[in-house]
Amino acid sequence: MENLPILQDLDKPRDHCGVMAVWGHPKAAELTYLGLYALQHRGQESAGIVSSDGEKLYPHRGMGLLGDVFRDQSSFQQLPGSSAIGHVRYSTTGSSSLANVQPILVNTKDGPVAIGHNGNLTNAVSLRAELEKKGAIFQTTSDSELFVHLIARSNKPTLPERLQEAMLELKGAFSVVLISRDEIIAARDPHGFRPLCMGRKGDTIGFASETCALDILGLPYERDVKAGEILSVSARGMESLQYAEPNLNLCVFELIYFARPDSHIYETSVDKVRRKLGKILAEEHPADADVVISIPDSSNTSALGYARQSGIKYEIGLIRNHYIGRTFINPSQFMRSYNSRIKYNPVRGVLEGRRVVVVDDSIVRGTTMKKLVGMIRQAGAKEVHIRIASPPVRWPCFYGMDYPTRKELIAAFATPKEIEEFLGVDSLRHLSIEGMLASTRDKPTNYCTACFSGVYPVALTDPAQLAELVEPDKAWAKAELERVLRSIE
Amino acid sequence: MENLPILQDLDKPRDHCGVMAVWGHPKAAELTYLGLYALQHRGQESAGIVSSDGEKLYPHRGMGLLGDVFRDQSSFQQLPGSSAIGHVRYSTTGSSSLANVQPILVNTKDGPVAIGHNGNLTNAVSLRAELEKKGAIFQTTSDSELFVHLIARSNKPTLPERLQEAMLELKGAFSVVLISRDEIIAARDPHGFRPLCMGRKGDTIGFASETCALDILGLPYERDVKAGEILSVSARGMESLQYAEPNLNLCVFELIYFARPDSHIYETSVDKVRRKLGKILAEEHPADADVVISIPDSSNTSALGYARQSGIKYEIGLIRNHYIGRTFINPSQFMRSYNSRIKYNPVRGVLEGRRVVVVDDSIVRGTTMKKLVGMIRQAGAKEVHIRIASPPVRWPCFYGMDYPTRKELIAAFATPKEIEEFLGVDSLRHLSIEGMLASTRDKPTNYCTACFSGVYPVALTDPAQLAELVEPDKAWAKAELERVLRSIE
Amino acid sequence: MENLPILQDLDKPRDHCGVMAVWGHPKAAELTYLGLYALQHRGQESAGIVSSDGEKLYPHRGMGLLGDVFRDQSSFQQLPGSSAIGHVRYSTTGSSSLANVQPILVNTKDGPVAIGHNGNLTNAVSLRAELEKKGAIFQTTSDSELFVHLIARSNKPTLPERLQEAMLELKGAFSVVLISRDEIIAARDPHGFRPLCMGRKGDTIGFASETCALDILGLPYERDVKAGEILSVSARGMESLQYAEPNLNLCVFELIYFARPDSHIYETSVDKVRRKLGKILAEEHPADADVVISIPDSSNTSALGYARQSGIKYEIGLIRNHYIGRTFINPSQFMRSYNSRIKYNPVRGVLEGRRVVVVDDSIVRGTTMKKLVGMIRQAGAKEVHIRIASPPVRWPCFYGMDYPTRKELIAAFATPKEIEEFLGVDSLRHLSIEGMLASTRDKPTNYCTACFSGVYPVALTDPAQLAELVEPDKAWAKAELERVLRSIE
Amino acid sequence: MENLPILQDLDKPRDHCGVMAVWGHPKAAELTYLGLYALQHRGQESAGIVSSDGEKLYPHRGMGLLGDVFRDQSSFQQLPGSSAIGHVRYSTTGSSSLANVQPILVNTKDGPVAIGHNGNLTNAVSLRAELEKKGAIFQTTSDSELFVHLIARSNKPTLPERLQEAMLELKGAFSVVLISRDEIIAARDPHGFRPLCMGRKGDTIGFASETCALDILGLPYERDVKAGEILSVSARGMESLQYAEPNLNLCVFELIYFARPDSHIYETSVDKVRRKLGKILAEEHPADADVVISIPDSSNTSALGYARQSGIKYEIGLIRNHYIGRTFINPSQFMRSYNSRIKYNPVRGVLEGRRVVVVDDSIVRGTTMKKLVGMIRQAGAKEVHIRIASPPVRWPCFYGMDYPTRKELIAAFATPKEIEEFLGVDSLRHLSIEGMLASTRDKPTNYCTACFSGVYPVALTDPAQLAELVEPDKAWAKAELERVLRSIE
Repeated sequence: MENLPILQDLDKPRDHCGVMAVWGHPKAAELTYLGLYALQHRGQESAGIVSSDGEKLYPHRGMGLLGDVFRDQSSFQQLPGSSAIGHVRYSTTGSSSLANVQPILVNTKDGPVAIGHNGNLTNAVSLRAELEKKGAIFQTTSDSELFVHLIARSNKPTLPERLQEAMLELKGAFSVVLISRDEIIAARDPHGFRPLCMGRKGDTIGFASETCALDILGLPYERDVKAGEILSVSARGMESLQYAEPNLNLCVFELIYFARPDSHIYETSVDKVRRKLGKILAEEHPADADVVISIPDSSNTSALGYARQSGIKYEIGLIRNHYIGRTFINPSQFMRSYNSRIKYNPVRGVLEGRRVVVVDDSIVRGTTMKKLVGMIRQAGAKEVHIRIASPPVRWPCFYGMDYPTRKELIAAFATPKEIEEFLGVDSLRHLSIEGMLASTRDKPTNYCTACFSGVYPVALTDPAQLAELVEPDKAWAKAELERVLRSIE
Repeated sequence: MENLPILQDLDKPRDHCGVMAVWGHPKAAELTYLGLYALQHRGQESAGIVSSDGEKLYPHRGMGLLGDVFRDQSSFQQLPGSSAIGHVRYSTTGSSSLANVQPILVNTKDGPVAIGHNGNLTNAVSLRAELEKKGAIFQTTSDSELFVHLIARSNKPTLPERLQEAMLELKGAFSVVLISRDEIIAARDPHGFRPLCMGRKGDTIGFASETCALDILGLPYERDVKAGEILSVSARGMESLQYAEPNLNLCVFELIYFARPDSHIYETSVDKVRRKLGKILAEEHPADADVVISIPDSSNTSALGYARQSGIKYEIGLIRNHYIGRTFINPSQFMRSYNSRIKYNPVRGVLEGRRVVVVDDSIVRGTTMKKLVGMIRQAGAKEVHIRIASPPVRWPCFYGMDYPTRKELIAAFATPKEIEEFLGVDSLRHLSIEGMLASTRDKPTNYCTACFSGVYPVALTDPAQLAELVEPDKAWAKAELERVLRSIE
Repeated sequence: MENLPILQDLDKPRDHCGVMAVWGHPKAAELTYLGLYALQHRGQESAGIVSSDGEKLYPHRGMGLLGDVFRDQSSFQQLPGSSAIGHVRYSTTGSSSLANVQPILVNTKDGPVAIGHNGNLTNAVSLRAELEKKGAIFQTTSDSELFVHLIARSNKPTLPERLQEAMLELKGAFSVVLISRDEIIAARDPHGFRPLCMGRKGDTIGFASETCALDILGLPYERDVKAGEILSVSARGMESLQYAEPNLNLCVFELIYFARPDSHIYETSVDKVRRKLGKILAEEHPADADVVISIPDSSNTSALGYARQSGIKYEIGLIRNHYIGRTFINPSQFMRSYNSRIKYNPVRGVLEGRRVVVVDDSIVRGTTMKKLVGMIRQAGAKEVHIRIASPPVRWPCFYGMDYPTRKELIAAFATPKEIEEFLGVDSLRHLSIEGMLASTRDKPTNYCTACFSGVYPVALTDPAQLAELVEPDKAWAKAELERVLRSIE
Repeated sequence: MENLPILQDLDKPRDHCGVMAVWGHPKAAELTYLGLYALQHRGQESAGIVSSDGEKLYPHRGMGLLGDVFRDQSSFQQLPGSSAIGHVRYSTTGSSSLANVQPILVNTKDGPVAIGHNGNLTNAVSLRAELEKKGAIFQTTSDSELFVHLIARSNKPTLPERLQEAMLELKGAFSVVLISRDEIIAARDPHGFRPLCMGRKGDTIGFASETCALDILGLPYERDVKAGEILSVSARGMESLQYAEPNLNLCVFELIYFARPDSHIYETSVDKVRRKLGKILAEEHPADADVVISIPDSSNTSALGYARQSGIKYEIGLIRNHYIGRTFINPSQFMRSYNSRIKYNPVRGVLEGRRVVVVDDSIVRGTTMKKLVGMIRQAGAKEVHIRIASPPVRWPCFYGMDYPTRKELIAAFATPKEIEEFLGVDSLRHLSIEGMLASTRDKPTNYCTACFSGVYPVALTDPAQLAELVEPDKAWAKAELERVLRSIE
């Protein structure tokens, strides 16, 4: 793509995907589409739906936002049937191509099957080599294609069992939805890295990455798909197969940043967790200031929490331009210098002469934050205090988040003092790991904190992944940071 | 267009346009583009830029958002020169066509000239008939084309004088920018209905509907173009021609809803006016409640003002899906029933069991509000109290806002009690006209309040316009309201 | 357009346009479309139709071939009514833009009117300047727009009279069709430069540039629109207004090359004229040879005539690739060297060891012919004798053909000997002017021979046109020829 | 696709594909593209090229004509390297989709490989089922995908050997080109059903379905790829592997209709064979007539042969509109009635009052011929005598031609007398099988005549194919013929 995806904040990790499935409704594809609309924040690069009318599977997939892929009602006339699965996807630049768009649909000896996958496999490279040695032909560069090859090779009598056989060979993070001619399946890896929930109204059953997608359909939330569970729905009803012992390592970043605040995931209200993150942040790191502002919209709730706890008044200090499309025309070096100002504009009347607390949910590279701090100061702020509602991100994720490499994570190579200087702020404070975990509902050990702590719950074996863990060279990293900064400048 | 513009809230008036101009910068077209990005909220149906390199004018215009019209860097290679004007436009469905996209560019005996117009003429119909009788051929159905015909017919020696001659014949609202081979002009009608401001840095001069567009360019605000002033910039410098006595009738709805909160217009900070609207609203109409929420994003600031004044805590009770594109696929009757839920989702944790104050800036038809009230109640709210930060809208606008006809304005035919019942709320209260005017900086008589009061500062003569003032038949209006409601349902 | 129009032979003149009109049929627009299909050879750059349902005019126009502009049945749903006019257009590169696409449709005080024009005005520049001085605004750079401005300014009571008033001011070549809400008009300049014929079946009346368009509709040919005649069709029936004395100067190139061989124009069968051109050519310039071949498809008929008269057998010696689209991807210098071979391939079995007569209808630059001669020799021809079924083209046309400028016409600056050498042929002979005129039905003085003789029947006044008549500098012309040759190489 | 492919004559069989390959040229992809241009008549539904730069394979493929798929020079910047293969494809409506576009490119354990296939496998169904049982996942519905699955499963050390192993399992017709990182392969089944030739100039080697593609590249023809031969080109030079004994069954329809007349295939000049077909046809079936005409362009050469032998003069009696695009807008029933007239127009002057011999190469359904006969009669022909330069087509083809099913072949169910009546002609005569074979260079037994004789040289096993051989019910067939006739009417 020739355009720079300006919606994509270089300063945030990106989720890979959102998944959706609907069973038992004459307009299953349309419901799936509506559900995906609510999950669009989880993936904006491509979208797709596969439906079944009991005899055939029907795909409609394409690059772009849902609105790009489903342009008119005719899209749905080609998606008949009362069951459907859908997927929205993000991916790294290298592998963003039509071939990788999900759901992946293939024909096997047992009939057609399609899958949508949220997560990341950690043993994809070696498994793929092994299958290719046996003559398998891969059509995509996506690790998700391993599911269908393993299913196609399994000789088990039912699809859930074939899926079980496949999943037992796969390591890493996977919340998946599958569709065959006559059933829908939702399954989650034993660690439960990625969320997956289920709702039901009458005969209609829905699965979704987040409850906000069930809300849009008016399907009351019933329960989460359990870690290690394969949940299938067919004419025989719903059947649960607990194919592996759960060993929870829920992704805490879903609560901090990815999920929508109106969602419940991991049986918790995201909105409430975020407000508590802000409150504990205020307790851990108070500031002597006049106003609290957020970076709209992702840190609105934690900023309100901080304001409430600290007693400092909450104001709207930055206006976000929501008319920015997914892409922004390929900027000349000249235009690039206006990039941050296109997206945010400070409200001078709120900031001028004030000591400002800026609450954000996370910092990855620090580049966007540096720009914003400059704008806030230019609007007349007397002091700028950054409060981050999560610990410093120091390690890459291999379970479904797309981070820059370790050497690009500012907290992986710079001291807190250095970061403060880099950002040009009066103070920068992060929430502690303990504070973060205290904001959640579950017991702390049920969360994966790898990106903060470097403790990886699923062993890494792929040499390319191991190479990403190496300590970054500080000089190189700083130079690189400057380069990125100039490039977004 | 086959798709329903879902971004377009049927419950709000729409502004017609935003204008932008840049003089004295080698990348004038790119700066104009950036400025228009900040003005995109003023018009989303079409966009265009015309630049000059001193010898020729170069147009690039198209239907859609800026991102649709300017798809890559090559668009700017076709817009050379150091001066440019730009325009974003909304229009009523009937006349939305490529031919009407602005800036309008024509060749006259004195060379090419292009114009971008924000506002609405009230004597367009008769003037057009008169010119056609003389053999003039109109290419568009837009009233803005009258400017160029009058300019082309004038025999005055300079463009500002030709424009003056034209503007003296035109009645109504017009903030315009013009470009010829060697000058840029910005002008405003004597009533100053629509805003227009000027900024400057070094040799670069910019004109824009709102200051947020100057901010994005880093051009410090210098002053407003005055009502009745023609301000031209050329190699001879800047020249002001006060072509008519100012007689201020500023559009107060710009402050209430249209303008971005980070803008200054009419020499006032929009953000401050909105906070004050909320505060006075809280004084005039307190509520016994637990939380104050806004309809994001347009009433965020007034809701904060209401919360601050009332002492009731501000919460984020509705999440808006910002990934909705400009259009949403042509909904079947089936899909339409999900429309409101696609755009907004309530945060149950905030609303459940609470007495809720919902602050909004305005109500036109009442249809969207009715849907939202339903969602808020379904999320468990115990009571719902609507507080509107402007008076009831009872009259159409002929000066640049696009309202439904009078019979579709709920406050024009229903009693307050009836509206409360229609919306299904515990109480509904509007700000008074006095309260509204007290929130502004200027003296009250400087504002146009026609849409609230029915007092039209520029006489209406066009029979079609006069017909719109007739008292609506109540039975008909109610039936129509039900119909609209079902259609968006 | 970024692509090279490979269909466009640089070695032939181009016609500017074809026109079509249908009255009195419920599917008038569809019939007009079918008729234009038969006229597509007269213009391939843009196409358009305007229909009337008695109340409004409906346009559908676009760049490209008919198949590009009318993509599906829906195009015709937007063209209701029982009358329609249509146009296909070629134009010089400079002015090929959407704005210039015909029919031109405008609103006048007397209602909407649209026009399609085949031909070229010779006093366009001065007339346009005059109208602009009076405040007229021109939307296109096409001379055809003058018609509508003059019509709009006329105060005559009926459209035919307004058109008459307009046409009396216009000099040059014009066969036009017009449509208003309630009538269709076809008219031709007093010289009759361009053809225009009429057919009728029952209540349906059609006008077309050539009879092949009437054939496709099954409308039997009735008569030509006369030179100097305005023929209007309305509810009152057909009315003829002979607005000026005919003074015939029919374009003889229509018979030689432009018109389709299955057409009758100027009351003559094109096929028969071409066969006779070939026969007289064989008489004037016999050749001692083994086979006669044509350059498919335009010289097939004259080659058959030559073969018949000379007794030398006719063979198919060149195969033309008809799958070449209108455009060919913008060739790198590398690809360009394959250009001729893409379009034509010699049939070795026909040419090898033979003395070959190549009959072509005309030579303009000589560049394509030079390529073909090289290919024919490479396929083993022993001798190559070129016979051209028209005299040498030495002068530009200002009446509707698009030639290169005079200095690019090889016969304008090179001696016959030099041309033979340039082409690399054993002999090159052209038909005489007398021989050419003897092939036609009319008396010789009824034809325009300006491009062969330099005798221009309508006086030229535009300085730009006069400048094109200057004797070309031979050295410059040769260098230019080499340059063109390399560019198409 | 919503449009009717009007280029596709329902009255002719269709070839499935053309293939092309280039080795040893820095612009290999561009040469391949040029070669495909010459082969466009072999397939117009999709096109593709895969190139190699020694390290990676690069694909560019799409639906449509070459001009649709390769829109600008940038297409070739994405196809680097000095070797490339290409493919143009036709297919039955059911399976025309992007997924089936060739060359098929896959990754195997031995690296990437791409293949372009001309022909049809007869054991595809059973082989595919067998592979799927082993877990293979097929991405397309095309039989050509079997090649790559069998190659991927082979454990032979070199690609030619892996291809040999694959081809020994495949039955039917296949002329293929393959590309890997470091070699190009061309291969042909032992029967040699489809042509495949090789040309060379310096270090550049080209393979193509027909020599006209070598001509365009200026690569002198060297020899055919032999039936049963795998010819590979790599840094080690050219290597031939005769993997199976040749047992010739050349498709005679290539000579009659498919191949371009300027091509040599099967070491024969197509042009000469066609002229001889016409001559023998004149001997077998003389006619007492005034003129011989062809159906342009496919029967031009055989009509010339007939005219020469019979002494009756050859004339151009039908003009074909070459501006018809690949598709014609989805015709309403109304427009359909004009279909034949859009494509052909009779030349009245040639036909009026004459006894006309119409020479065509073949008749399949008879529907187009019936329309043409009607047009010829309407233009005044006194008698119409059809002479067909091939025997009656009575059987389907399973080796690479796309015919209607047997019951749609008019000669399979109607007597000669009945066909004459259906067409409305004075006489209809077909060439005999012996006469046809006598026109060729090879000995008669070297040709496949299955479509004329029902003698299938490769045994059919697929039940679906066997079902197509059943004797058609005459009443049903006639009704169906009427239906088709109405549908194209």
